[in-house]
Amino acid sequence: MSQPSTELETFPNPAPERDYTIRMNIPEFSCLCPKTGQPDFATLKLEYVPDQRCVELKSLKLYIWSFRDHGAFHEAVSNEILGKLVAATAPRFMRLSAKFNVRGGIYTTVILEHRKLAWNPQATVTLP
Amino acid sequence: MSQPSTELETFPNPAPERDYTIRMNIPEFSCLCPKTGQPDFATLKLEYVPDQRCVELKSLKLYIWSFRDHGAFHEAVSNEILGKLVAATAPRFMRLSAKFNVRGGIYTTVILEHRKLAWNPQATVTLP
Amino acid sequence: MSQPSTELETFPNPAPERDYTIRMNIPEFSCLCPKTGQPDFATLKLEYVPDQRCVELKSLKLYIWSFRDHGAFHEAVSNEILGKLVAATAPRFMRLSAKFNVRGGIYTTVILEHRKLAWNPQATVTLP
Amino acid sequence: MSQPSTELETFPNPAPERDYTIRMNIPEFSCLCPKTGQPDFATLKLEYVPDQRCVELKSLKLYIWSFRDHGAFHEAVSNEILGKLVAATAPRFMRLSAKFNVRGGIYTTVILEHRKLAWNPQATVTLP
Amino acid sequence: MSQPSTELETFPNPAPERDYTIRMNIPEFSCLCPKTGQPDFATLKLEYVPDQRCVELKSLKLYIWSFRDHGAFHEAVSNEILGKLVAATAPRFMRLSAKFNVRGGIYTTVILEHRKLAWNPQATVTLP
Amino acid sequence: MSQPSTELETFPNPAPERDYTIRMNIPEFSCLCPKTGQPDFATLKLEYVPDQRCVELKSLKLYIWSFRDHGAFHEAVSNEILGKLVAATAPRFMRLSAKFNVRGGIYTTVILEHRKLAWNPQATVTLP
Amino acid sequence: MSQPSTELETFPNPAPERDYTIRMNIPEFSCLCPKTGQPDFATLKLEYVPDQRCVELKSLKLYIWSFRDHGAFHEAVSNEILGKLVAATAPRFMRLSAKFNVRGGIYTTVILEHRKLAWNPQATVTLP
Amino acid sequence: MSQPSTELETFPNPAPERDYTIRMNIPEFSCLCPKTGQPDFATLKLEYVPDQRCVELKSLKLYIWSFRDHGAFHEAVSNEILGKLVAATAPRFMRLSAKFNVRGGIYTTVILEHRKLAWNPQATVTLP
Amino acid sequence: MSQPSTELETFPNPAPERDYTIRMNIPEFSCLCPKTGQPDFATLKLEYVPDQRCVELKSLKLYIWSFRDHGAFHEAVSNEILGKLVAATAPRFMRLSAKFNVRGGIYTTVILEHRKLAWNPQATVTLP
Amino acid sequence: MSQPSTELETFPNPAPERDYTIRMNIPEFSCLCPKTGQPDFATLKLEYVPDQRCVELKSLKLYIWSFRDHGAFHEAVSNEILGKLVAATAPRFMRLSAKFNVRGGIYTTVILEHRKLAWNPQATVTLP
Repeated sequence: MSQPSTELETFPNPAPERDYTIRMNIPEFSCLCPKTGQPDFATLKLEYVPDQRCVELKSLKLYIWSFRDHGAFHEAVSNEILGKLVAATAPRFMRLSAKFNVRGGIYTTVILEHRKLAWNPQATVTLP
Repeated sequence: MSQPSTELETFPNPAPERDYTIRMNIPEFSCLCPKTGQPDFATLKLEYVPDQRCVELKSLKLYIWSFRDHGAFHEAVSNEILGKLVAATAPRFMRLSAKFNVRGGIYTTVILEHRKLAWNPQATVTLP
Repeated sequence: MSQPSTELETFPNPAPERDYTIRMNIPEFSCLCPKTGQPDFATLKLEYVPDQRCVELKSLKLYIWSFRDHGAFHEAVSNEILGKLVAATAPRFMRLSAKFNVRGGIYTTVILEHRKLAWNPQATVTLP
Repeated sequence: MSQPSTELETFPNPAPERDYTIRMNIPEFSCLCPKTGQPDFATLKLEYVPDQRCVELKSLKLYIWSFRDHGAFHEAVSNEILGKLVAATAPRFMRLSAKFNVRGGIYTTVILEHRKLAWNPQATVTLP
Repeated sequence: MSQPSTELETFPNPAPERDYTIRMNIPEFSCLCPKTGQPDFATLKLEYVPDQRCVELKSLKLYIWSFRDHGAFHEAVSNEILGKLVAATAPRFMRLSAKFNVRGGIYTTVILEHRKLAWNPQATVTLP
Repeated sequence: MSQPSTELETFPNPAPERDYTIRMNIPEFSCLCPKTGQPDFATLKLEYVPDQRCVELKSLKLYIWSFRDHGAFHEAVSNEILGKLVAATAPRFMRLSAKFNVRGGIYTTVILEHRKLAWNPQATVTLP
Repeated sequence: MSQPSTELETFPNPAPERDYTIRMNIPEFSCLCPKTGQPDFATLKLEYVPDQRCVELKSLKLYIWSFRDHGAFHEAVSNEILGKLVAATAPRFMRLSAKFNVRGGIYTTVILEHRKLAWNPQATVTLP
Repeated sequence: MSQPSTELETFPNPAPERDYTIRMNIPEFSCLCPKTGQPDFATLKLEYVPDQRCVELKSLKLYIWSFRDHGAFHEAVSNEILGKLVAATAPRFMRLSAKFNVRGGIYTTVILEHRKLAWNPQATVTLP
Repeated sequence: MSQPSTELETFPNPAPERDYTIRMNIPEFSCLCPKTGQPDFATLKLEYVPDQRCVELKSLKLYIWSFRDHGAFHEAVSNEILGKLVAATAPRFMRLSAKFNVRGGIYTTVILEHRKLAWNPQATVTLP
Repeated sequence: MSQPSTELETFPNPAPERDYTIRMNIPEFSCLCPKTGQPDFATLKLEYVPDQRCVELKSLKLYIWSFRDHGAFHEAVSNEILGKLVAATAPRFMRLSAKFNVRGGIYTTVILEHRKLAWNPQATVTLP
């Protein structure tokens, strides 16, 4: 087993004056079970409101692939990935959902959020 | 008919400083009808915000299987399972949904929630 | 044409100390059109928070079947069924949806709610 | 091209003491493009809380069909139909959605609401 | 590579006294990757509450097609299109969603909103 | 319990020189269980190649409705309906499928065919 | 009521040396019921192997629209349209399916084929 | 672990003069893994052309339930059930499909057929 | 408007001793309408049994993209692409399906096959 | 990069006197691209008629996992896996389908069959 990549590139938000959302659906996450060494698979869904930096697509792909030989429990690895993405981009808001393949007849999904302190999202409006 | 297992293992929450959600979809619940002794089937959906402890996956699987020879009414068994999971993990929030197979042309689902007293969930944000 | 059954059995709520929801999907409702005597068909969806009594499944099935030879307009029969279920169980909350088959190229659904006076539902929490 | 019908029959609300919703899905709306004279097609969805009067089903069908030879822009005809239905029934609440077939590679839907002044809908409850 | 069109026609809102929503689903957006020159594809979803002006359908189609030979990053081009539509119609509210085809195993969607200052949307009502 | 209608109207096939197929999907069949008297429900699918006569739509609807108070086993009633339709229209080919609602956790469908003696269907061609 | 168009343009098959299939899905067919004058709606599916001529798209659209004020029974109008298309293009093979909207609780579809005399389709191959 | 039931009731085919098909979808099969004792689940699909006898529905349900405490491998138990059904009814044709829940990340389905010797099914016809 | 690429790379079939099928789903085809210059879009599905050569994936992608500024009618461009692929790989069998986006309310799909002379596909077997 | 496992266990067919089919859906196949070293993902579908030996489930799972660090082209690795399974079980019939994730905007599937020489599958019957 190995350690995941520590690299994650970003680029400047082209519209920092506006709150807007970027969603990324990443169906090819794979890591190893720390107990048995057998492969695990998950689909990640990332959703964030960028502040000054956005996640660079190719770099994100390589970061995700770097978990392939990494032993990781469902709950811990989900927290680790969110922490890494928050550290790299300091977003106004970020949510990560990790939906793992069935094991033992049970399907597990872990969902986490980060929110910037002292950030007031624009009031939202419910439309017909 | 027999009694369900009293065992349910847990492990320490790897990120207790954060509110996050774990969802588990459990399609293989089966028990017996207390009136007729005939098998009943349900899909359980569990969703919780852990506090200090998380439910261990394999132990949960065995606990669910232990109802196989247990006579149980829909409403009562749903309350019993939620009570057991709350007692084992003392979560900040927990919701259980039990969707039973059709009987007499009617499909029944029971949905229950538990919330920790004096817990303030982080304010949520509605995004575009 | 005939009158629907006046019978509807209930049983004691096994967990009256908790607010929880019971959903019942009933795809086999049929009655007669009061104008033409021709059969009408609907799928009923019932959802309620029981207080002291729950609806007994087999009794509900028979009550639903008793409308088979009863002449009834969409809006009126939906109100009648909700009224009957509320009278029998005095629930904290109850919602009935009746989705009728297409007639004249138009699909009609009637949705009704009842709520107990002076009942404060537990505050809910929006999770990630 | 011709004018749509001015007729629309109603009947007394059988349960005016209760706020409840009636939904009607109407997949067979057709009118003409005022520029080209070519047919347009839409699916209408009507949803309302009746006050003293309900829309009669057969009359609604005929009113909808009366647009068949009427030239109408998407936005204007949607407003016209809602206005007609509100005038006929004075509902507590009404929402109309008109989903038109694709034209020029673009799918257009228009959604409108009417609400009675000085009407306080019963507080709603979010259930598990 | 070329610049997108600067033209976008509008017409007067036929019902400016009412808040209502227009949705447009536009599955045929294509531009070029500024790095590689290779084509990108997206489905745009536009939803707005018009104030005094509405977007003209054919003009919108031509504006969307004008990006075909334009080099554009996902986040920047989404902000540019919303900005253009807001400048042309000054809507009370507008939301744009741009769902791009998979690249590098990752599916990206960008979602943006604009809201008119000092606009109070009519209070909404949650119905059964 | 009562007997089904013996009436079934037909009209002349407008194109008897050609083999072609007519399909009718009939979701509103209901009869009674001969053992318990409780209602059964089925969706019928009829598909036939007419010879000299076609089934009249309104008459078919009334014939189907006439089973409402008729006690009938799944296998027998399916054979009875096919026999009646064959007797009325003498088709070149006819297939009837009757898909009954779940009973005792089991979903039953009965499928039957009739073919005219000495009829040679036109040779068919498999296309890309 | 009026008569449908007698016009239908064609263009030369660009590859007459090859047997190939053209499928056209036409969801916007509407005509009138000859008994009641009320509108009927259908989705047409056309599939053909061209010989020397192909159907021109815009001309087909106008031909389909010309039935809008034409009174027509389901079986007869389907045979009429196939006849017209065969007369205009003399195809090697043609199949027309007309799926009409529900009337009287019954959904009707008519399916017809034409095949050129003395035409031997290329032998087909079943692949894994 | 226990043995499955040896009982399976039948009734006379009401139309032995005709070849027709009966399909039964049975989503509630459960047995035990002979290696681990843990429960397995499958959906069975049965399809047969009866000869002189049909399978009685309630008896089939009880036979299926009798495997609940029976240890059985996927391939062997599927062959055993088909053998039992064939022995009880001597059908002209019978097919059984057993679709088991995922185990070890792999979904297994077993499909078997029986055909009566010296039985010539009626020639079939391929229709448009 | 420009001409499509004339390049298309291939590589040696790694298993020419076996008949097997390769399917490629290509959702990003775009060309121009020769009459109006406006963009057209299609999803291509390619399926072939290779003989000595297979189509190289990246080269196929570039060939498909080279139609972006090419004016092309639906029927002609489909025949052109199949011809090019056949010329490059001389497959035992090849089928191309091109499903174009809706134009004028009509959805068009073109399907073509090529088969090598004097090739006898291995006999196939129909399994339960 | 490494070599896949050479191990694959089998067990005796419990019903070699009958032709029957076993289907296995295997969604967790992953290998490496031989050019770039980046991970590839596929869903495998295996379908076979066993002769004397069946594939053991756990052993199959481990064999599939052994490709995780193996460099492999789509067409070659599909042929390799089929060859291995045929060598291990000598089945009467076997089909393997490998559906790879999108790369360069193109989705590739490879489908292969093996059939035992001198094996005559039982004649099949087409049922209504």
